[in-house]
Amino acid sequence: MKIINTIIELKTAATLDFIDITQKVQDKIKETGITDGVVNIQSLHTTMAIIVNEAEPLLIEDMKKLLEKLAPRTYQYMHDNFDIRTVNMCDDECANGHAHNKAIHLPVSAMINVVKNSIQLGQWQRVFAVELDRPRPRKISLQIIGA
Amino acid sequence: MKIINTIIELKTAATLDFIDITQKVQDKIKETGITDGVVNIQSLHTTMAIIVNEAEPLLIEDMKKLLEKLAPRTYQYMHDNFDIRTVNMCDDECANGHAHNKAIHLPVSAMINVVKNSIQLGQWQRVFAVELDRPRPRKISLQIIGA
Amino acid sequence: MKIINTIIELKTAATLDFIDITQKVQDKIKETGITDGVVNIQSLHTTMAIIVNEAEPLLIEDMKKLLEKLAPRTYQYMHDNFDIRTVNMCDDECANGHAHNKAIHLPVSAMINVVKNSIQLGQWQRVFAVELDRPRPRKISLQIIGA
Repeated sequence: MKIINTIIELKTAATLDFIDITQKVQDKIKETGITDGVVNIQSLHTTMAIIVNEAEPLLIEDMKKLLEKLAPRTYQYMHDNFDIRTVNMCDDECANGHAHNKAIHLPVSAMINVVKNSIQLGQWQRVFAVELDRPRPRKISLQIIGA
Repeated sequence: MKIINTIIELKTAATLDFIDITQKVQDKIKETGITDGVVNIQSLHTTMAIIVNEAEPLLIEDMKKLLEKLAPRTYQYMHDNFDIRTVNMCDDECANGHAHNKAIHLPVSAMINVVKNSIQLGQWQRVFAVELDRPRPRKISLQIIGA
Repeated sequence: MKIINTIIELKTAATLDFIDITQKVQDKIKETGITDGVVNIQSLHTTMAIIVNEAEPLLIEDMKKLLEKLAPRTYQYMHDNFDIRTVNMCDDECANGHAHNKAIHLPVSAMINVVKNSIQLGQWQRVFAVELDRPRPRKISLQIIGA
């Protein structure tokens, strides 16, 4: 039984960037030699989600629209009212209330089964890291557990 | 420590069919003899979700309505525009943009604790596989890990 | 390899109470002595969710508003129609259709990596148990697995 933690580093290019990390996850599993187990793919950010869905470009556009409708960038979030907010203020603080509000309805991690040293996905399933905030460097933590 | 992968096969009967798979999961855990651990219950489909909630028929009707409101079948999804779409087109391709868009807001898997050779659920918790697309054969993958 | 199940008991104070349980989870991990593994933090209730996000009070107010908009308390849920409902009726049954409908769009559990005997979270990530129903005693199950 082995437990291996490894980080995938990404650079996102835009708000609502869907980055397909399936191959990167697969490569990390191969490196470990673990044949049977699970991999927990976890966002280390409050405004990045992990989604398992189909890599069809028009569908991704549909999903972006739905997320934007759910928690629009144009809405006035209290989190973005820097006149009254005092907690967790950084030097480079940006208005990103929409990103957090999109995030709570999306998974922060995906636990996927590992079978025959491969991530076990259905025919159309791909793993995406989804940038909900502005473009930036991001980290995804993988915990690979098995034998 | 054992790691056992097993598949539950289902046949869904309708769009938004909620299939209670709790007993099937429990039976699979019993078979393994694992007393303490976890079970990862994972949909192998991009338009099937795993939901843990209460098996009350009227509540399920409420949930169906909410899902339909969130991503209506009547909306024009770009994924369903076969005049412009070129990627992942199958022979039996159907308009299912609504199903994918429902899916991204629902969990693809549920990781549930296993205690005393049983799935550990609260009083009202049941595990459902939810068909978001048209009726069809479906597969749920269980990874049961423990000792 | 150890597998340790432990319960966190809470008393919620209000509908949509966000209770930061990060330190409680951390304390439980310390007690086990497990240095590398995962912790599965699971709600044992159908109207309590586990959310990983930022502990910024105004943001939490934004999230409450969004959840209320998604599944409003004022909507007429069939689950709350006690003239027609027959299933799972308790003596103290309350109208909580809104709470279940909020719940299906939120995670029932969060699987978080454990590294160096600590829960591995990004800079702003905190773990919340979120009360979707009326205030009451609640239980969160932790399964801590590792070596």
